[in-house]
Amino acid sequence: MRFDEAYSGNVFIKSHPNFEESEAVIYGMPMDWTVSYRPGSRFGPARIREVSIGLEEYSPYLDRELEEVKFFDAGDIPLPFGNAQRSLDMIEEFVDRILAADKFPLGMGGEHLVSWPVMKAVYKKYPDLAIIHMDAHTDLREQYEGEPLSHSTPIRKIAELIGPQNVYSFGIRSGMKEEFQWAKENGMYIAKFEVLEPLKQVLPTLAGRPVYVTIDIDVLDPAHAPGTGTVDCGGITSKELLAAIHEIARSDVHVVGADLVEVAPVYDHSEQTANTASKLIREMILGWVQKRK
Amino acid sequence: MRFDEAYSGNVFIKSHPNFEESEAVIYGMPMDWTVSYRPGSRFGPARIREVSIGLEEYSPYLDRELEEVKFFDAGDIPLPFGNAQRSLDMIEEFVDRILAADKFPLGMGGEHLVSWPVMKAVYKKYPDLAIIHMDAHTDLREQYEGEPLSHSTPIRKIAELIGPQNVYSFGIRSGMKEEFQWAKENGMYIAKFEVLEPLKQVLPTLAGRPVYVTIDIDVLDPAHAPGTGTVDCGGITSKELLAAIHEIARSDVHVVGADLVEVAPVYDHSEQTANTASKLIREMILGWVQKRK
Amino acid sequence: MRFDEAYSGNVFIKSHPNFEESEAVIYGMPMDWTVSYRPGSRFGPARIREVSIGLEEYSPYLDRELEEVKFFDAGDIPLPFGNAQRSLDMIEEFVDRILAADKFPLGMGGEHLVSWPVMKAVYKKYPDLAIIHMDAHTDLREQYEGEPLSHSTPIRKIAELIGPQNVYSFGIRSGMKEEFQWAKENGMYIAKFEVLEPLKQVLPTLAGRPVYVTIDIDVLDPAHAPGTGTVDCGGITSKELLAAIHEIARSDVHVVGADLVEVAPVYDHSEQTANTASKLIREMILGWVQKRK
Amino acid sequence: MRFDEAYSGNVFIKSHPNFEESEAVIYGMPMDWTVSYRPGSRFGPARIREVSIGLEEYSPYLDRELEEVKFFDAGDIPLPFGNAQRSLDMIEEFVDRILAADKFPLGMGGEHLVSWPVMKAVYKKYPDLAIIHMDAHTDLREQYEGEPLSHSTPIRKIAELIGPQNVYSFGIRSGMKEEFQWAKENGMYIAKFEVLEPLKQVLPTLAGRPVYVTIDIDVLDPAHAPGTGTVDCGGITSKELLAAIHEIARSDVHVVGADLVEVAPVYDHSEQTANTASKLIREMILGWVQKRK
Amino acid sequence: MRFDEAYSGNVFIKSHPNFEESEAVIYGMPMDWTVSYRPGSRFGPARIREVSIGLEEYSPYLDRELEEVKFFDAGDIPLPFGNAQRSLDMIEEFVDRILAADKFPLGMGGEHLVSWPVMKAVYKKYPDLAIIHMDAHTDLREQYEGEPLSHSTPIRKIAELIGPQNVYSFGIRSGMKEEFQWAKENGMYIAKFEVLEPLKQVLPTLAGRPVYVTIDIDVLDPAHAPGTGTVDCGGITSKELLAAIHEIARSDVHVVGADLVEVAPVYDHSEQTANTASKLIREMILGWVQKRK
Amino acid sequence: MRFDEAYSGNVFIKSHPNFEESEAVIYGMPMDWTVSYRPGSRFGPARIREVSIGLEEYSPYLDRELEEVKFFDAGDIPLPFGNAQRSLDMIEEFVDRILAADKFPLGMGGEHLVSWPVMKAVYKKYPDLAIIHMDAHTDLREQYEGEPLSHSTPIRKIAELIGPQNVYSFGIRSGMKEEFQWAKENGMYIAKFEVLEPLKQVLPTLAGRPVYVTIDIDVLDPAHAPGTGTVDCGGITSKELLAAIHEIARSDVHVVGADLVEVAPVYDHSEQTANTASKLIREMILGWVQKRK
Repeated sequence: MRFDEAYSGNVFIKSHPNFEESEAVIYGMPMDWTVSYRPGSRFGPARIREVSIGLEEYSPYLDRELEEVKFFDAGDIPLPFGNAQRSLDMIEEFVDRILAADKFPLGMGGEHLVSWPVMKAVYKKYPDLAIIHMDAHTDLREQYEGEPLSHSTPIRKIAELIGPQNVYSFGIRSGMKEEFQWAKENGMYIAKFEVLEPLKQVLPTLAGRPVYVTIDIDVLDPAHAPGTGTVDCGGITSKELLAAIHEIARSDVHVVGADLVEVAPVYDHSEQTANTASKLIREMILGWVQKRK
Repeated sequence: MRFDEAYSGNVFIKSHPNFEESEAVIYGMPMDWTVSYRPGSRFGPARIREVSIGLEEYSPYLDRELEEVKFFDAGDIPLPFGNAQRSLDMIEEFVDRILAADKFPLGMGGEHLVSWPVMKAVYKKYPDLAIIHMDAHTDLREQYEGEPLSHSTPIRKIAELIGPQNVYSFGIRSGMKEEFQWAKENGMYIAKFEVLEPLKQVLPTLAGRPVYVTIDIDVLDPAHAPGTGTVDCGGITSKELLAAIHEIARSDVHVVGADLVEVAPVYDHSEQTANTASKLIREMILGWVQKRK
Repeated sequence: MRFDEAYSGNVFIKSHPNFEESEAVIYGMPMDWTVSYRPGSRFGPARIREVSIGLEEYSPYLDRELEEVKFFDAGDIPLPFGNAQRSLDMIEEFVDRILAADKFPLGMGGEHLVSWPVMKAVYKKYPDLAIIHMDAHTDLREQYEGEPLSHSTPIRKIAELIGPQNVYSFGIRSGMKEEFQWAKENGMYIAKFEVLEPLKQVLPTLAGRPVYVTIDIDVLDPAHAPGTGTVDCGGITSKELLAAIHEIARSDVHVVGADLVEVAPVYDHSEQTANTASKLIREMILGWVQKRK
Repeated sequence: MRFDEAYSGNVFIKSHPNFEESEAVIYGMPMDWTVSYRPGSRFGPARIREVSIGLEEYSPYLDRELEEVKFFDAGDIPLPFGNAQRSLDMIEEFVDRILAADKFPLGMGGEHLVSWPVMKAVYKKYPDLAIIHMDAHTDLREQYEGEPLSHSTPIRKIAELIGPQNVYSFGIRSGMKEEFQWAKENGMYIAKFEVLEPLKQVLPTLAGRPVYVTIDIDVLDPAHAPGTGTVDCGGITSKELLAAIHEIARSDVHVVGADLVEVAPVYDHSEQTANTASKLIREMILGWVQKRK
Repeated sequence: MRFDEAYSGNVFIKSHPNFEESEAVIYGMPMDWTVSYRPGSRFGPARIREVSIGLEEYSPYLDRELEEVKFFDAGDIPLPFGNAQRSLDMIEEFVDRILAADKFPLGMGGEHLVSWPVMKAVYKKYPDLAIIHMDAHTDLREQYEGEPLSHSTPIRKIAELIGPQNVYSFGIRSGMKEEFQWAKENGMYIAKFEVLEPLKQVLPTLAGRPVYVTIDIDVLDPAHAPGTGTVDCGGITSKELLAAIHEIARSDVHVVGADLVEVAPVYDHSEQTANTASKLIREMILGWVQKRK
Repeated sequence: MRFDEAYSGNVFIKSHPNFEESEAVIYGMPMDWTVSYRPGSRFGPARIREVSIGLEEYSPYLDRELEEVKFFDAGDIPLPFGNAQRSLDMIEEFVDRILAADKFPLGMGGEHLVSWPVMKAVYKKYPDLAIIHMDAHTDLREQYEGEPLSHSTPIRKIAELIGPQNVYSFGIRSGMKEEFQWAKENGMYIAKFEVLEPLKQVLPTLAGRPVYVTIDIDVLDPAHAPGTGTVDCGGITSKELLAAIHEIARSDVHVVGADLVEVAPVYDHSEQTANTASKLIREMILGWVQKRK
């Protein structure tokens, strides 16, 4: 983690060298210790930065260039291996600092549990917060085999904190029966299987509100994102996910922060997942950063 | 292969420990010795079971849980390496036994030739049988370079046994000219390239009939199933294949048995193919087992 | 490179052994030295030929067989490693010879820069030439970090030679802002993101004209072509690319030459990219060769 | 974890179906959450069992067969993901139970920290315990970036518990300067780089004593064990490690327990590491189980 | 298979275009249908030829160049997939023809069973034949799970045909107890674990005799040959295997034929196994072909 | 390339942030365009830096820590893709600048041709220079298929510049007959196959002389370095190469510069090659930097 000091790792292309002058901050949360299946997402942020060198700076989708947005790359938060609670505390404290400086936090995971302290921090600043959640999984468990700090729980935690009616999930195709029931009984919105069409319906209802967007890369079909912990077929295409990002960009919601999690490079020899994540990050920067005003 | 004795391999999640009490039996047919291109599907069934541990027990598509269906995992049939004829005999005898006990046979391949003795056995019990076949390839050859026992022949064999007019192929995008001609001249149904839409048209015509469904995983585009012997572009998505399974589940046909073949794990470093197959098996169990009544 | 002499490498299935008697010539251009990201496309042509053995000779899309078209496989042009200018000269001279013998040139890359000398040679014979270009990238740079001979420049070069208004690009989703602007200001056609629908609109306007088609395999989404130098999400499916090839085959343009470039096998462990390229080459032969009259 | 109940996973070939009748118990400790570099050893035990099917039951090195030793495969201990302390407690309790039943514990990791609770349990039973440790790394840190529960600390912990003079490390080629100094100052034995020759010198001095042997697979050169978290060149060959196991088998020490840790299958596409580990486990069973008397 | 007709596959570098003028013939036996573990060696010969293009023509070990030996590459014998008996018959007939033309047969596998018909054919010509066998496995089974045609049986078959006392195995480290006992009781020579030193002792005793050498690539340690069906640690290095080939070249035995089997490329992403096999073939050609006089 | 300005890539662990204060400079030469076989070494330097994070700072071989040597990481020289001559000029100019500042140049390749301009620059400063060259290949060609700028030529070029009697090659096991002859006729030293023993004999004869050491990673056996362009079996172990580095460190030669080339990460899924290279760089820094006085 760096703000001012010298840094020795890769940074995202066209990131701004100065924290103070930047509107947004990107950062890695290299934690994967509570996942129940395949670990490896700790290396996601570093690989996303590394392959960003192959990316064009210009988006023909949005007709904007990275030079138009000042964003600082803070590197990876140095999380303590195997210590979930302390890791979450460090993440929350880190995001508090970004928000205090009135900058847009854009995180890269890491397992999905890292989104929990981020969303908590954002909620402290924006009590009217709504969550847009794109994922293959509900992530609504109260605990996983006895552990309350698990990659299967972050959406449940934030839903309980801000109220389930303020959480909107899209693309969901896996979960326990109880999770779907809990959502239904508590007024939480879940769009099963699809993202773009339901999103178009939801966005107008959120006009003017502060929104945090959390994207689990496995909302994509494994064909489009083989490099993740839990591959689950029947997902959406990268074309659809790009369209969803642009739909939000063109809507009237105020995006106040976002993350992209669960990129695990070792399962993807072709590196398409990291390259895709890198392009998604570019589109999130170009489409969303100004939207928080 | 086991029915009662102790077993030392992986089993599919939530499989029932007792053969007698089960409605369905899943089993592996680890044969790949007649394939003309890339072998390796012998390891398909074992890997499908292994990754089933990452699967949810609940299907949000069908709103059912695996606990609602009692199915027994009989393990892999111990086929003699390199001896095609004896392997086929063992498979037929094995399926005869399952059918005699009035249970639903759900097989995992192995190369597609393993479906031939299974369909033969099912036909003995259900003389009114129709076959639904999803595949990239016609599999209608009489022989392959002189060998009548070849992975390119199973559909021809069953068509000649039960009558070509009782065989319905979907998603076909590869074959010899002669194969397509034979189908046409003999009144066999072939839906080229597509699965879901033609299936919707065919299913009502099969209402009330016993149907066996054989799915070659390569009906999927290689993007969705790289781990198979013969990858052939231009296929359908996993989303479409899931929809096809659910379409059959909601139709009026009586599914009396099924298989999923040609998963070859070594060609898929990300293991998405085995994970996809595992989810398809779950949906087939949840959607089809009761349909044989 | 061979015309008459003995040859010691793989050839494409069903290629004709005699150059003189053939209508078309396929050839490899194993060059990848100017790419700025991941090299390896030099092995594309050899791998495409190798996996062609798994291909059916019959196209159910076009209802034609490879036997119906005489095409000669000239092997790979022995390009001098690391010498871009001399490589391009050799390619141009080679294609001049094919055109002089009035045969259809069908090239396999290699990086996209190899298309430049081919198109130049074709233009010498067909002054009324139009270019159909399918790609993820504009390839409209004047130079890349000071080098005018770069994989990012071939479309710019041909556009300047034959006039930008004669170049039609499809599927483009990456490029510098300046490249898109140059195209716009100079009347060059660019269909962003999509291929099939815009192609259907353009083809009638080209009726009767000689057309060269250059396909960069990365016009496909990385899900469908992970084995390429620069993977870029948001692309089209292999089904759509097949449909585009068939749309051209059924149109009234005169295809006078074509290429398929940027297959880099090492990034695709499942070999789906090479298999897909092999099938695309088959469809190009069956659909386009007679169209040059 | 199972003792009596039904079990649904793979077991090691020729393992005995009954716990009570067995002399030895093998078990997996699928934990990798405190590793600082590449995770994935949680899948080591399952993969070792899976590939054991390719193993001969007979050792031509020891002229013994697996049938001659009754060993029970207890499966993997169901450790709580991401909770290091509770995992270690569960392991200790599990091994206590094996030792109470007077059986030989033979564990498979998992990261090296899992050896700590095992050695602690063994020490409770054998106060005169000595440790033989084969590894590329010293593992003598007090903590790792603030965490006392880290994969870099198990040997330090056991050394402090049983006295450094009772710990013998072999093959060490990596560590902090402070770790080597601590060993030197505290009378702990470290054989740098080599295993077999120093072992031959140490073994006679341990004659008659109870010894626990802990082997980190990375004591092997990466050429022989690429599938591990931290590959470190300059290691020994598998031939040398086999010889070391046999040297202990033929010595006068009383081996009272052992483990083999850090097999991480995902980094080894050829599966040689898991196959090697499987053979090492066979030799440990055949060579060491009777030695605890 | 080709002798005179046109051929469309890769050939080994510097192979002679004319069968009649050649002293030696290399050929592939692409069979893998009786293997009990991982298939894939059917692609060994083609890959060995393909990578031979990266090989130097000169051996600094033997100070000879490939140009000094005329050898013809006959391509792969077109064996019928899945039919073991007919495959073996075709191989025997093919080698009969080579021997009738008084040429040196140098085969590439394929599974080890392919060596059986070759050795049978060679024995018909040389009744005084001795076999030198380098392998990790005894291959002395009478049958494998009931199948007498299995990859585990070729050495037993030849030993029974020519007398066990004429068979010399080296490097053996795996097998059933019964196999080792059978060898011992029947006077067959087995050098366990080592190759070079025992070979130096055996060679003088074979001076003047015709010798066939069969090498299973898995005699190498998996570190040196990960791309094979059954990896088994504790093997020799490629340096030692090269030295063994040269030791035979410098001895007084008359090598009358040879093979190298069990290269399975798919398990070796780095292609080192195929490259190593390619170099071994070069050394066998340069060192052994003239030795048959 | 950077000296003072901000830099956005990874740096080697414990590298010093300031150029002026450093004794040594490490830098990448990401060029692979003249290789005749498998490209990819352009990514070698970046990957070596990336994995250096898994490296200990202390060498138990030399009993020194990285903190004891100030070395600056200048990043990769931004070489123009596909332009060999300009790349070599840029490298020479870069090294001239390092030498003018009286610092030790330690380069990382990239293909072996990059060593040529480095050695030329070093020779300008040290006219009494000797070269120690460890490699599988002679690299003594005058040209490769007509190209004088080829990865097969650097040792020939430097030998002709400084006199063949001042070049010492070790571990050579591949080359054309003419290359070995040229070396012999011109008094150049070549140790075939072995490194350590011949090095021990040569070093005393070089006492007091300035020496540049160039190591091609393929001097290692492919078992120890699968991630390189041209794998060639029969090489040395990483243990032997480490010993060779330490032998030089303890000798009386004055090492005035060094490089390690040909690491091509894509061919090594386990990343052992990059990890090994990273450790070798550490040992070269710790053992050689002070030796240039």
